[in-house]
Amino acid sequence: MSETPTAQAFIDHSLRLAQIANPESAIVHFNDPLPLDCGAELSPFSTAYKTYGTLNAEKSNLVLVCHALTGDQHVANLHPVTGKPGWWETMVGPGKPIDTDRYFVLCPNVIGGCMGSTGPSSLNPATGIPYGPDFPVITVRDMVRAQARLLDHLGIPDVLCVLGGSMGGMQVLEWAATYKDRVFSAVPIACAARHSSQNIAFHEVGRQAVMADPEWCQGRYLEEGKSPRKGLAVARMAAHITYLSDAALHQKFGRNLQDREKVAFGFDADFQVESYLRYQGVSFVDRFDANSYLYITRAMDYFDIAADHGGVLANAFAGTRTRFCLVSFTSDWLFPTEESREIVHALNAVAAKVSFVEIKSDKGHDAFLLHEPELFDTIRGFLSAAARKRGIL
Amino acid sequence: MSETPTAQAFIDHSLRLAQIANPESAIVHFNDPLPLDCGAELSPFSTAYKTYGTLNAEKSNLVLVCHALTGDQHVANLHPVTGKPGWWETMVGPGKPIDTDRYFVLCPNVIGGCMGSTGPSSLNPATGIPYGPDFPVITVRDMVRAQARLLDHLGIPDVLCVLGGSMGGMQVLEWAATYKDRVFSAVPIACAARHSSQNIAFHEVGRQAVMADPEWCQGRYLEEGKSPRKGLAVARMAAHITYLSDAALHQKFGRNLQDREKVAFGFDADFQVESYLRYQGVSFVDRFDANSYLYITRAMDYFDIAADHGGVLANAFAGTRTRFCLVSFTSDWLFPTEESREIVHALNAVAAKVSFVEIKSDKGHDAFLLHEPELFDTIRGFLSAAARKRGIL
Repeated sequence: MSETPTAQAFIDHSLRLAQIANPESAIVHFNDPLPLDCGAELSPFSTAYKTYGTLNAEKSNLVLVCHALTGDQHVANLHPVTGKPGWWETMVGPGKPIDTDRYFVLCPNVIGGCMGSTGPSSLNPATGIPYGPDFPVITVRDMVRAQARLLDHLGIPDVLCVLGGSMGGMQVLEWAATYKDRVFSAVPIACAARHSSQNIAFHEVGRQAVMADPEWCQGRYLEEGKSPRKGLAVARMAAHITYLSDAALHQKFGRNLQDREKVAFGFDADFQVESYLRYQGVSFVDRFDANSYLYITRAMDYFDIAADHGGVLANAFAGTRTRFCLVSFTSDWLFPTEESREIVHALNAVAAKVSFVEIKSDKGHDAFLLHEPELFDTIRGFLSAAARKRGIL
Repeated sequence: MSETPTAQAFIDHSLRLAQIANPESAIVHFNDPLPLDCGAELSPFSTAYKTYGTLNAEKSNLVLVCHALTGDQHVANLHPVTGKPGWWETMVGPGKPIDTDRYFVLCPNVIGGCMGSTGPSSLNPATGIPYGPDFPVITVRDMVRAQARLLDHLGIPDVLCVLGGSMGGMQVLEWAATYKDRVFSAVPIACAARHSSQNIAFHEVGRQAVMADPEWCQGRYLEEGKSPRKGLAVARMAAHITYLSDAALHQKFGRNLQDREKVAFGFDADFQVESYLRYQGVSFVDRFDANSYLYITRAMDYFDIAADHGGVLANAFAGTRTRFCLVSFTSDWLFPTEESREIVHALNAVAAKVSFVEIKSDKGHDAFLLHEPELFDTIRGFLSAAARKRGIL
């Protein structure tokens, strides 16, 4: 790697990112290449992760939490960039449904991400500058493969439970399909066995918004000292609508005006919902890398477990001994209940142990991140039962 | 107006647009100002329109068709810009449900539009350059007010039927509320009495996409010789998804790949749905003005008939003698059936003559533009009954 001032700047940038991500995270660097579904390999690669609670002597109490598209490893601590609570603080902690007094909780940042794990903003060892568009296209299975390597590194043979919502749920399914003997129980929440046409369409809109921003610079914005903030904000705004429900938006905002008595006959944010969305867009770009957004949405689009198993979803789970609990939400139109039901049918077809809960909620897809007592009860109960079955007190 | 070369260029541009729109349309220029809801007025202003069939001697057979957000007056003829069939050719024509052998069909381009009626791309008489962001923010009621002026000009006292889908349906409701004595019957299709929070949110995403494009130039792209094509294409893509249904996308595209056997591990359009959406975006910008898109979406956001009548929707229709037929589609999630039902309730509250048809369709919001035999039958039957009631053979 040539130590030109430019390269040095990127190393500084990379270190700064790692420092931001680090105070609460560990990072493991792997020198053995990670083979990818696209045929390329990632070498070296890093995985940043966060843990909560204590691994027991039998190493049998690991709960692996998989994060969603724009999530990261900061599950239950203040986020080092935003200063906000962790994304699943209601779920993970002492005495909480995923009880850190009882379980050892691990959440890795996915590869392709931007919170310390290797992704498009990482330095490409071949060039000494950030990968940018030269980063290989990854899949959900690649993410899971990297997580399995992390478990190997930590010397943990298997997981008591792997769980997550949305793209986290896709990882859960991939874990159960790819590492059958390492998954005692699995909780895929608000997800599907394949990304739907409509969901691909929404992702494509987001990507086009990013790529339409001239500051994207064909993906080389870090080198150019630019940032496609506007494009990424638009992408986030569009996506954010899909995470909510019509009812949730109606209850939260209706047609309420923002700091005014009547409409202003202009293009400022007259309505609270506009102001809210703009805030979602603008605050997102402060904590997320635009290329990571492209790569991770692409990984979700490519997700299709049946296709990877001869076109038959049940094949993916043949012979499984994992205990499954699937969860969906009535108002989730991004991953509707029907998609969870298809997974249940496939699991039934291979006589898997499976329970399925459809939770009545008007919060839309985001329900899995919000205060949903029935979700808390479901996870607490399922996890407890799995732990007892494994002899964990 | 100073005849500088620049101003001349815009006049040429304006004339060229008018010529494109004109071969199939008439344009009426009004010198009397059009008062607008925002308090400003438009003066002078023009309305381009298209007619089909013949006005009878009694002037009692006018069917006024109101177009949707991105529609125009080219209902049933080849579109002069795209060369494609008119947007409602299945509905309007000799022997068709809106039978031009029987009815005189009129469709005006809305003000704010870009197919010959005065809009943000028109020359501002005060400056001699296109209005751009100086165009006043208009409302659906303003559009309807301009249409009433057109009827006055044509010497037609009232309409046998006013009908339209989506924003066209909003205009229908506004006609029935504002010009009670001029509307014999009304068919609002796939619409609502007010724009929902979720719909405002999607519009805001589209507007932000346009305004994020540096070629938007704060709305002065015509003067700068630029065009926010990328931003407008992204806006159209996002909107287009909302016009369809999950089921329609699934049936049409599923996860089918575009001209390839397997995914390419890149950001080209691997999936047919991506390719389709990109085409929708790119082809739209060839026929639509970006500022018109901003202004018309804003008019829809502002639409809230109840708010204009003391907060009670029924008040808007008190004393109406209009015969109503409302139509909704089961898979329309942009304007769900519930929203039509609210209008029906309000009409019932004032003892209006109202029928309501919810059509089972998996085509989503766009169903009103597509081959839906039950819609054809409904409109043919309702219109025939209204015509008979009026003594039209």
